[in-house]
Amino acid sequence: MSVPVPGMESLEWPHPDLQDDLARLRGRSPLVHCITNAVVTNFTANVLLAVGAAPAMVVSVEEAAEFVRIADALLLNVGTITVPDAEAMLMAAETAVATGTPWVLDPVAAGVLTYRTSVVGKLVGLRPTVIRGNASEILALNGLNGAGRGVDSTVASTDALPAAIELARGTGSVVALSGKVDYVTDGEQVVSVEGGHELMSRVTGMGCTLGALIAAFLPVSATPFRAAAAASAIFGAVGGDAAGRAGGPGSFAVGFLDRLSTIGLQDAFQGA
Amino acid sequence: MSVPVPGMESLEWPHPDLQDDLARLRGRSPLVHCITNAVVTNFTANVLLAVGAAPAMVVSVEEAAEFVRIADALLLNVGTITVPDAEAMLMAAETAVATGTPWVLDPVAAGVLTYRTSVVGKLVGLRPTVIRGNASEILALNGLNGAGRGVDSTVASTDALPAAIELARGTGSVVALSGKVDYVTDGEQVVSVEGGHELMSRVTGMGCTLGALIAAFLPVSATPFRAAAAASAIFGAVGGDAAGRAGGPGSFAVGFLDRLSTIGLQDAFQGA
Amino acid sequence: MSVPVPGMESLEWPHPDLQDDLARLRGRSPLVHCITNAVVTNFTANVLLAVGAAPAMVVSVEEAAEFVRIADALLLNVGTITVPDAEAMLMAAETAVATGTPWVLDPVAAGVLTYRTSVVGKLVGLRPTVIRGNASEILALNGLNGAGRGVDSTVASTDALPAAIELARGTGSVVALSGKVDYVTDGEQVVSVEGGHELMSRVTGMGCTLGALIAAFLPVSATPFRAAAAASAIFGAVGGDAAGRAGGPGSFAVGFLDRLSTIGLQDAFQGA
Repeated sequence: MSVPVPGMESLEWPHPDLQDDLARLRGRSPLVHCITNAVVTNFTANVLLAVGAAPAMVVSVEEAAEFVRIADALLLNVGTITVPDAEAMLMAAETAVATGTPWVLDPVAAGVLTYRTSVVGKLVGLRPTVIRGNASEILALNGLNGAGRGVDSTVASTDALPAAIELARGTGSVVALSGKVDYVTDGEQVVSVEGGHELMSRVTGMGCTLGALIAAFLPVSATPFRAAAAASAIFGAVGGDAAGRAGGPGSFAVGFLDRLSTIGLQDAFQGA
Repeated sequence: MSVPVPGMESLEWPHPDLQDDLARLRGRSPLVHCITNAVVTNFTANVLLAVGAAPAMVVSVEEAAEFVRIADALLLNVGTITVPDAEAMLMAAETAVATGTPWVLDPVAAGVLTYRTSVVGKLVGLRPTVIRGNASEILALNGLNGAGRGVDSTVASTDALPAAIELARGTGSVVALSGKVDYVTDGEQVVSVEGGHELMSRVTGMGCTLGALIAAFLPVSATPFRAAAAASAIFGAVGGDAAGRAGGPGSFAVGFLDRLSTIGLQDAFQGA
Repeated sequence: MSVPVPGMESLEWPHPDLQDDLARLRGRSPLVHCITNAVVTNFTANVLLAVGAAPAMVVSVEEAAEFVRIADALLLNVGTITVPDAEAMLMAAETAVATGTPWVLDPVAAGVLTYRTSVVGKLVGLRPTVIRGNASEILALNGLNGAGRGVDSTVASTDALPAAIELARGTGSVVALSGKVDYVTDGEQVVSVEGGHELMSRVTGMGCTLGALIAAFLPVSATPFRAAAAASAIFGAVGGDAAGRAGGPGSFAVGFLDRLSTIGLQDAFQGA
């Protein structure tokens, strides 16, 4: 392992800092501009509403840049990207850079398909505030970034941690690496978040909605690192709790939204 | 307040006229052609099926006009509008005018974004049968209509009622104004519908689906005014009832579909 | 009836052959490439995840052919087709033919709208592994295929069985005909599947998701005929069971996903 892993902290909900961030999120209800994939638009919007944010899907080339100027944060997810989507995403990202609006890039299947890998390369060049992906995607992005690592879709998140740290150092982005254990790093610090549940991989777009949650925390957390950590910890706690009550993936998704809307508000609920 | 508010009636479910309309809707199962936003297509289709209508999302420029000739009603919702969507919507609306097919315009975020505001202006010029929007949208549309009012997204529906009446008088459309209290007006009569629940604002696209419900009632109600009133009253009653049984926004959306499919069919269920 | 109906077998879950196929599906988790309609993308992905497959919606002209080379099966569904969708579907189908990847065509509303009927005609000419449709769609496709039958959306699946057999013989495709009773035929054999429930027609895209399930079985079943039969039998059993526990269409869809994820895994659950 060529990249030294810095000292790592393990993060667990409940945690006073994260509870503060969540309370601020609910107080401010940040407007999160999403250009995301066709599979998860509805669930993403409902996750953002459940946590207390205000989602808005404004996706056309004609409107994307104009809306970034109004939004508190931006989420770009390339899951079902087309040429017009890519154009809108690049315009939105350039506007976000110009206005200082924090933004999250979710590079779904980067490294697997030529076209999206090229679009993602351009977006990474604009230095997202946060990049969220699974091990394969982070390895692919780090390859794009010059380190030349290949793609392995079966790799565990732990094995991609050095690539995540290197990617964070190379881009200045916070990297949120999702897997059985989630990691968040800014290239200097790393936190790990355990939790979640196997059921979370049986519902489409759970990872995509974590990207949206991170975007919602960016306007209210002290740093992008803390925003990504807060979103990951809450996501894992809600997921673990909802899975424990679910009869399968259908009732899990329903329960996830229910628990997300009350986490931190009920004394009776103390994490996973 | 420059526009005199006419005498207002408060409408509540259950109500014999609305029960008749709902029974006719279920008997006829009107075919509702929807060109709506990407976030709510699935939920909109499920709401229409739950109430007893037959939804069809036919969205391309190649097919939109042809399908209007088959449909019983048309819904246009600009929530995630693109240039091809706008072209399809204008062709559909022009066809609906030519064939006398009743249609609903949902001008999501009109007044906020330049492009859609221009498209909505053209659609309003075609005199929709019903316009459904929140206070900000109705104020914006009334501004387009010449009265020059600004946009205020925090305004209560009650404060936008004069604009709704003015818009109805100027366009000949019935205006359904959504908010904590819903109002329906044809410029002469006004009905108010109380009910609903805070949880309805925590599920994406509830307002959009009210637009779809109004479209479903248009072919079976005596007048567009009554169709909008019937849809609003049933929407509020089902929403209030489902909210009372829900553990959060996830189970609320599920329960909303369940209750909508049985409202009026069970003696045991008598409104919110 | 000009087409003789061959001897027919009735298929019921549980059935040892189908249980084997389902176990193989869960063991292999086939990658199912979907280009489907905008209404059902999310539900389709969740159905595929629930049964144990790996869905991927890759829809652009830039990526569709490249992804077919990675996928284990392909699903094409024309429900909300646009010109770019049609181009991507034709490229994907041509690639699937070249690579021998099994694929399913779901010709939603073929025969009703001119544009999609022409696209579907081209796709049928590429000889899909399986064609899944309701009675009207199968009658329309058989008309395209030269038999000249008209479209009747009120026809029962039983009345379209001769057309299904004829279509299967003319194209070499397995035809899965959906209705109150489902039929699967390769032109020589026919199986019928009873079951299901009226609630299945009150949730949008149930038929579309059956097409996706068939695609998931194609890489693991001995023949396309058996894949379509297995998917139909499991679909009906899960649907019947979930309907029996549901309070309406909302909770039915949730329960459908839950049951689909456990069918065959629990001794306690023995079909509808």
